[in-house]
Order: sequence, then C-alpha cells, then structure tokens
Amino acid sequence: MAEPIGRRECIALDDADGLRALRDRFVIPDGVTYLDGNSLGALPRHVPERLKRVIEDEWGRGLIRSWNDAGWIGAARRTGARIAALIGADADEVTVADSTSVNLFKLLVAAMRANPGRNVLLTQHGNFPTDLYVAQGVAELVGAQLRHAGLDPASVLDALDDRVAVLALTHVDFRSGRILPMREITAAAHAAGALTLWDLSHSAGALHLDLGAASADLAVGCGYKYLNGGPGAPAYSFVARRLQQALRQPLTGWLGHADPFAFCEGYAPAPGIDRMQCGTPPMLSLLALESALDVFDGVDIAALRAKSVALSELFIRLADTTLEAHGFELLSPRDAPIRGSQVSLTHPQGYAIMQALIGRGIIGDFRAPDILRFGLAPLYVRFVDVFDTVEAIGSIMRGGEWNRPQHLSRKPVT
Amino acid sequence: MAEPIGRRECIALDDADGLRALRDRFVIPDGVTYLDGNSLGALPRHVPERLKRVIEDEWGRGLIRSWNDAGWIGAARRTGARIAALIGADADEVTVADSTSVNLFKLLVAAMRANPGRNVLLTQHGNFPTDLYVAQGVAELVGAQLRHAGLDPASVLDALDDRVAVLALTHVDFRSGRILPMREITAAAHAAGALTLWDLSHSAGALHLDLGAASADLAVGCGYKYLNGGPGAPAYSFVARRLQQALRQPLTGWLGHADPFAFCEGYAPAPGIDRMQCGTPPMLSLLALESALDVFDGVDIAALRAKSVALSELFIRLADTTLEAHGFELLSPRDAPIRGSQVSLTHPQGYAIMQALIGRGIIGDFRAPDILRFGLAPLYVRFVDVFDTVEAIGSIMRGGEWNRPQHLSRKPVT
Repeated sequence: MAEPIGRRECIALDDADGLRALRDRFVIPDGVTYLDGNSLGALPRHVPERLKRVIEDEWGRGLIRSWNDAGWIGAARRTGARIAALIGADADEVTVADSTSVNLFKLLVAAMRANPGRNVLLTQHGNFPTDLYVAQGVAELVGAQLRHAGLDPASVLDALDDRVAVLALTHVDFRSGRILPMREITAAAHAAGALTLWDLSHSAGALHLDLGAASADLAVGCGYKYLNGGPGAPAYSFVARRLQQALRQPLTGWLGHADPFAFCEGYAPAPGIDRMQCGTPPMLSLLALESALDVFDGVDIAALRAKSVALSELFIRLADTTLEAHGFELLSPRDAPIRGSQVSLTHPQGYAIMQALIGRGIIGDFRAPDILRFGLAPLYVRFVDVFDTVEAIGSIMRGGEWNRPQHLSRKPVT
Repeated sequence: MAEPIGRRECIALDDADGLRALRDRFVIPDGVTYLDGNSLGALPRHVPERLKRVIEDEWGRGLIRSWNDAGWIGAARRTGARIAALIGADADEVTVADSTSVNLFKLLVAAMRANPGRNVLLTQHGNFPTDLYVAQGVAELVGAQLRHAGLDPASVLDALDDRVAVLALTHVDFRSGRILPMREITAAAHAAGALTLWDLSHSAGALHLDLGAASADLAVGCGYKYLNGGPGAPAYSFVARRLQQALRQPLTGWLGHADPFAFCEGYAPAPGIDRMQCGTPPMLSLLALESALDVFDGVDIAALRAKSVALSELFIRLADTTLEAHGFELLSPRDAPIRGSQVSLTHPQGYAIMQALIGRGIIGDFRAPDILRFGLAPLYVRFVDVFDTVEAIGSIMRGGEWNRPQHLSRKPVT
C-alpha cells in the first residue's frame, strides 16, 4: 500500500503542473467538480463570443453570402484537418459531418463493399451500444453476418479469419477505459485480409494516437467528448488516403458530390475524403466545434497524456486507500499504458452513490449495472479535483448519504 | 397588360398588410433586400439571446445535466411537433434529426423494405439534386431500379405501375417554384400500391400544407429555408402514424432505440416516430431551429400563403411591364395556385445579372444554366422589396451594369 496523500500535496501537484494554465481556457462553473468530460466536454471560454459572431454577423448580416464570404463551405475540411493533427492522420484524411452513428454506417457499408468476397462484419461484445446497433443495421442491410468477439484483445484476434471483411472496434472501452492495442490488432486484421474501423470517441483529445503509424484504415469519433465541441457536435471520419478512391459510401448526398454546385442529375463521388460528406452540415454546431479546437493550440499531446495518466494513477491510489473498505472495486485496468483517460469503479449502490456525488456538485456518471465512471479530461481536471472526489465518495459512504430517497429513485441517464 | 404600379402604391400595400409586423421578428440588415429565404432563412431576432443562454447556461454551467435539466433530450420531438403544426401533421408524426439527405435515405430504404414485392424507386427528372443522388444511392444499395418520370404531373402518373414501391417527389420545384398536386398524386400512387415520399424543403413555412388530408405517407424537409432555423439546421421527417410500426429504417443508432439509456447490445426500434432518430443531435443547431419556430406563433398559415401569392403576383406583374423588353422570361407558373413562394426568371446573362443585383444589396440566387430565383418569404419580404428588385433589374439592364468583369467571373454558387 502506498503512502497516504493529502489535499495539500494534490494542490502542490497542480501548482507544479506545466499544463495547469489550460484550465483557464474553459468555463468551469463555481461549485462544480467536473469529471464527465468523456460524455460532454466543458465549454471553452472563447466559444460563446465566436458563436455570437457566427449568429449575429455571419447568419444575421451575411446571410446566404456567408457560405463563401465567411468560409462556411470549408469548415468541415478545416475542422477535419485540425482533428487529424490530434489523431496522427494527415489533413486530407479527416472530415467532419453528421453524427458518429451516421459515419459508422457510411464506413461500415463502404468497407463491406470494398471486400465483396467476404461476408462477416466482426465487432466485439461490450462495444459501445450505438456501434453495435449500427453494425447490426448494416449487416441486415447488406446481408452480412455480424460476428461478436469477446472483450479481450486475444478474443478479437481469434475471431479473425478469411471471411471477415471489416473489424469494427472502439479504441477505449466506455465502461472500463481499457485501451485496445490498435497497432497489433490492425496488423493482425490486415494479415487476415480485413479492414479495420476504429471508434475514437473516447480517445481523441486525451490520448496519444497515431493512426498513420498503426496503418489504420478507417476511423470515426465524436466531437463533443474530449474535443469539447458542444452537445451533439458533429463527428469526424478518417479514411486512409490509400483507400479513399476505392471506398464508396452509400449516403450519397449533395455535399459528397464531385461537383456539388453543378446541380447535375447523376451522383459522382468527390475525390478524396470529401466523398464522406452527405447533406448540409449543421453549421452552428460545426463552427462551435471548429472554434473549440483552439484549446489544443500549442498543447503537446504527449504531455497531455502524461497528465491524464498521473490523474488516474492518483485516483486509483486514493481509491485503494479510502474506498476499498466500502465495497468499491476498480474496473479500469491498473496498467496505465492500457488505461484511457478515465477511472471506473463498481459498487452495488453505484447509482445512488453517483446521485449523491452529483448532489454535492461532483459530476461523474453512472453506467448500468453498477459502474461509477470518472472522466479525467486532462485539459481542465486538477489533481485536487481527484482528491476531493475520492474524499467525497468516502464521506458519502461513511455518512450513509447515498441512502436517501432522492438518490435512490432512477432518472434517465444520459 | 395591367396598369403600371408605382413604389408608393407598394408602400401602401405594405402599410395595409396585416402581417407586416412579422418582419420585426427578424434581423434584416440595413441596405439588404433579401429574396433568398428559400436558400437560408433570415435570423429571427430572438435567436441570438436564446443561443447565448444555451451555450453559456445550459452547456457552460449545466454541462451534462442539461440533457435532462434543460430538456435537451426532448428537443427533437418538441421541434417536430411544432413543424407538424405547420404541415398538417399530428405532433407524434414528425421528428427532427440529421440532414434532409440523411432522412431521405432512411425513409427511402424503409419504404423499399415495406414493399418487398416491388423493385422500382420512382422519382422525377429535375427533382432536387440531393434527392436524386440519395435515390441513386439507395437504389444501388438495395438492388432497386431507379426510374425517372418527367417534370410534369401527368408524366409522374404515367410512370406509376405495379412495380413501383415508392414515389419520391419534391413538392415545390426548386427551379421554377411549380407545386405538384400532392393529394392527387398521392391518391394515384396509393391506387397503384406505392408509397409516397414528399420533400417539403421548399414548401413548409411558406405554403399551406395538409399532409393528413392528402393521406401522405412519408415526408422530409429542411430546417433552414422558410423555417429559418439557421445554416444547416437539422431536418425533419414525417411518417404517417399508420405506417410507423411497420417501417424499419437502416440507420439504427442509439437514439432510435426503444430504450436508448439501457445500453443493451441488441437494437430494437423505438415505438412511433422516435425510431427515425439515429445519433446524438447537433444540439446548438437543433435548439436554434426550435427557437426560430417561435416566429410562427400566432401566424395564420392561410394568411401567410395569401401574402406570398400577392407578393409573387406583384413580382410577375412588374416583370411583365419592366423586364420583357430585356429578354427575361418567366419560368414560374403564371397560375398562382400551382406556384410556390418564389418567382424564377430566365435570362441568358442570368449569372452576371444576379451578381450585379447582389452588388446592389438585393440578394436572390442563380441556378444554372440561366435561372434567376427570387424567394418571397412572406414572413419578412415586403411589397416594396419586390418593387425595388424589379426596378433594380431594369436599371442594371438599361445601364449595362451586369456586363462588368466582377459580375461575369463565376464563383461557387451555394
């Protein structure tokens, strides 16, 4: 058992943190400890002013002219290029459009089409629900067989064979935070003749990613978790350049056309990543995401990852000393290199405990049946936040505070 | 030839207009005459303040809690219900999600599935480009035959036979503004055993629509034209209640699940219209649309349509007297009941003439090869705007102002 660590030492850790000034780029409400940036990232401080200009000047005064004059038409590619820099992709390999679910659909159908001699869409039990649902919808639509590997990497490798057209996985498990080895799994999939599709929703913006070095084929991810793009921010899709010309996605809307302004009758896909577009993007949400990405300006992703690891190490160390006696178990891996930017605990009374925490202004989230999930967004979470959270959980358990009617009654969880 | 009509008479028409106060609900920039509300609706005056609260209070301070506490989770259905009231549908028949193109895809695949003994997807030459592109993508994906009727209603009726599963049309032609007879075509499609899918993008918010009375099956429409929801505002889909339980759309994301918060592994569609949802909606854009719809509060749609007709009648009358000599031709129908809320003219120099108009602050748009399109959004366009526009065109022609280098060089058209 490690030495106990106190609140003053955590404040000292914050004082010594080379990234501590990044927190000032965000609005963090008074009285709130926010550990749910893996569900909805905090508001970057400069975004309200930017959106005010978008709405009042670009929409209100520029009107239709803003598609050209304010550069709306280029926003999807500009934003994609900025995300590319965060995930180890090239600028022309990423674009932003639609939701994560819709992009999963596009890329899964495209991948099945690209491998016509194979009929299996391989995914994983425990994958993020919408990933599973979309995979199910795609399999039904194209007449593919949906195969589910188990949760561990070995099971995934075992499930690869010469019938698998595409392997669709989420890089960081949303429950435990476990990281799958992207490079090894991709290499194995390629050796088996399959394409890979990685969901980076719980990775990008908090972890070091290098899609290029991993020879990744396809990826998607959402804009509103660690990328802080705002509620329901549009999602991105990545297609390795070597695959772009061959891939045909089925959502053939006007913005994916080779010449969208020609208004001709027949569809011809745009060259390159632009063919992943479909309809007109929700511009207010897209421009909020584009603007939000400014918070990454000058940020060293390796340093960000190091801070994230330090935060989760601290959390686990404190939980080991404070929470073991109260029946909590650590769901997240103890091995930092395979742990994402979150710590998940389990407890039979997890729902009520999380409600009691939220009642104290400490916001994590609960995932059925018994998971308390704490996102440690390294751009704005402090070491003292981690200390206060574990202390609060201990206090809630010692005082029986969780066992109150308002904490026990279930509300919809989002 | 009608009597000449002067600017003072147009101002008098505005003074007598019972809807004139509605214009004050919008921001119309000084020096701009805006006749492009059929491409991007003007900014409702109250929307900036609403979005400021959404961003600063709901996202910034409420954070993840706003999904419940600020009612984000219900926004798609609330907004759908408000649009339903504008198109003659019931509140539980419309929801808002994704783009028009994505909703076209969902409903076309669902319709093809609902009619498995039939293999033809029938649409129309001259349909809106993205409608044609999506139909092409769907036909390829499900192995259907794409059939194109001609532009006139008789050609559509002739193309119906016992192989047609679904007939997909746009209610108001984007080029000419011609209205297709929804009730008659729907009845003929039903008699032939086909479903109908209407794109209402150029109708809703400016025309009287009654999907219920027309026995319409399916419809989609965009949120950013006459509904004024902002650039790329999310789109809506309508499914008649009688069809909802049988229709299965292929974009099976988590928000269309019967129990989206259970996070279970298998997809089961939500009952009713909610199954048309897919991923997380772009909340800033969705809430802008919801808020924008306030401008319709207390507005009698029949009166709005009557004003729209009066505006277009005035436009045509003025064009007849002023523009005939300069080589313009009227593309829109002369028959008001089959003319939407726009007037389209053709001229061989249409592109340069529109550029010259825009240079004078009069904003319509150009559609290749030779169409000048003037949207007459009756919520904010005045009779004097119509007068000034036709006068300006005449002046541009008389002075040769269109024939300048900056007007002749082509830019992307949006």
